[in-house]
Amino acid sequence: MAMQNGACKTVLAGSIAKNLIVEVQEGLKTVDRKPRLHGFLANKDPAARMYADWTAKTCRENGFDFTLREVDREDLEDEIRHANNDNDVDGMIVYYPVFDSTRDRTLQWTVSMYKDVEGLSPQLISNMYQNIRFLDPPTNLKKSILPCTPLAVVKILEHLRIYNTFLDYGKRLFGRRITVINRSEVVGRPLAALLANDGAEVYSVDVTGVQHFSRGTGLRKQKHEVRDMEGWGLEQCLPISEVVISGVPGEKYKVPTESIREGAVCINFSSEKNFNPDVKEKASIYVPAIGKVTIVILLRNLLRVVQNRPQEPTKTSDAPDPVPGP
Amino acid sequence: MAMQNGACKTVLAGSIAKNLIVEVQEGLKTVDRKPRLHGFLANKDPAARMYADWTAKTCRENGFDFTLREVDREDLEDEIRHANNDNDVDGMIVYYPVFDSTRDRTLQWTVSMYKDVEGLSPQLISNMYQNIRFLDPPTNLKKSILPCTPLAVVKILEHLRIYNTFLDYGKRLFGRRITVINRSEVVGRPLAALLANDGAEVYSVDVTGVQHFSRGTGLRKQKHEVRDMEGWGLEQCLPISEVVISGVPGEKYKVPTESIREGAVCINFSSEKNFNPDVKEKASIYVPAIGKVTIVILLRNLLRVVQNRPQEPTKTSDAPDPVPGP
Repeated sequence: MAMQNGACKTVLAGSIAKNLIVEVQEGLKTVDRKPRLHGFLANKDPAARMYADWTAKTCRENGFDFTLREVDREDLEDEIRHANNDNDVDGMIVYYPVFDSTRDRTLQWTVSMYKDVEGLSPQLISNMYQNIRFLDPPTNLKKSILPCTPLAVVKILEHLRIYNTFLDYGKRLFGRRITVINRSEVVGRPLAALLANDGAEVYSVDVTGVQHFSRGTGLRKQKHEVRDMEGWGLEQCLPISEVVISGVPGEKYKVPTESIREGAVCINFSSEKNFNPDVKEKASIYVPAIGKVTIVILLRNLLRVVQNRPQEPTKTSDAPDPVPGP
Repeated sequence: MAMQNGACKTVLAGSIAKNLIVEVQEGLKTVDRKPRLHGFLANKDPAARMYADWTAKTCRENGFDFTLREVDREDLEDEIRHANNDNDVDGMIVYYPVFDSTRDRTLQWTVSMYKDVEGLSPQLISNMYQNIRFLDPPTNLKKSILPCTPLAVVKILEHLRIYNTFLDYGKRLFGRRITVINRSEVVGRPLAALLANDGAEVYSVDVTGVQHFSRGTGLRKQKHEVRDMEGWGLEQCLPISEVVISGVPGEKYKVPTESIREGAVCINFSSEKNFNPDVKEKASIYVPAIGKVTIVILLRNLLRVVQNRPQEPTKTSDAPDPVPGP
């Protein structure tokens, strides 16, 4: 019975993904050909292969073209450069890790920002942190690409109506306090930045401590600023946060339910369960996993990359990036 | 420039009333005749006359029939009893104060609950506090009538999307903390009860102190409970409240802006300005007055009274209330 879990609604990612799929399929009708994604697999990580298989399936089911390219990791950079200049390839995804974090970063920088469906290109990342939402100011028709997992969380918060559409676009989290547990470069930190840029006060928590991401009083700042919260921990953040988002790897980690505030919205983006089952006795909404939304965001990004495509791409043989059209 | 007020949206009651008027006019199409409201004016209060004139105008403009009955206050009780049994009268409003609060209460109890558009009948008030939403359980087709001003605030919060429609009806304020300043029997206390019954944690503040209205962990209780917050004041309530609703009579009273939390929604239901102009530098939404919504709610209640009307009212000559139909 629902009463046993109090008033908590458990929301599965699949139900949210469905709505987004419809939106993506509508968008697909506006482009002239089946968007083609290349996935580069250069490691033996079974998780990476699983993700690749899942991508292939989701692409196929939804009218996208996916090619898995299994390559030796020493050839990967050349392969990426080739794909950058191949007009038949619309988007690319590389299954990391390939080498170590430093060399992998160089690989991320090699992918053309016009084909980067993961939003990891330096200019895209810079846009995200700087709260620059378009690639073509002041025309503002081409939206910058955001990394998949953080954007999936944003889309989930929109679905749950935590984004208040009564407020103006770009400010719809104004007045919300959100704790994000995990400050990885891949998800936690960009997510905290995105939410703060949308108006929230974000407490970003990891083992090293708490940082506060905020645009300040009245959202006067155009982008968030970060300050260290000396002496703060989860015990300070959770009781004042209406939304708690956790993505800590490892089975052992659990968000302390007793510190979560009454009626909070709790979202887990870890592949492990970061929340104890008793979270349902306190939360108003609980989202136990987000993977199915993330994969739809990948397709959404691919579609956007196609929509953003320069009208007549200049083909160059050795430049790392195609020159964008007017 | 918007920037000067930070990101605050000032929302005028007129714009909210417009949507509600449309809804009321749709409803009007479903009833067989023009609903008729009698307004009883038995005092010399210019504010009461102004309200009566305003009611007349709003009724006329929106397809309702309004008759102002100016009577000697000693005749008022008989007049009300007569109207209770007059099938041509659908609803009644009495412009208070007439005598003193004790005798006025007796007048309120005289108005038939089936014609009471102000929601002041004992059973309607009891329903409201007890979170009983229908007059005809378990059929649940006839909604109980709620007092106009508190309901106007609820409708405003719905309009501003503070009620989260992703959550189930009756729980849409779950997770919200709301401060209501003023605990009068007419507005402040019923409002705190309504909001708490809808899932909020409400801090009800007046000169005597703070009371906490809440349905408890996981909204396990079917209706709110009230407890005194010893030693609490506005300084404790405001920094943790996402919504601040104030209705203190008198020019001098001002909500201390410095204690209001960043991005709060601020609503004034006093006829005086309870918020300083600098509230716009902190709030996400500011509603400076609610009167235009309240008057539409009066029509909405009148319509509901007509829709709730027993199919074949039994006409009795001396019973105070008509007997409801099946």
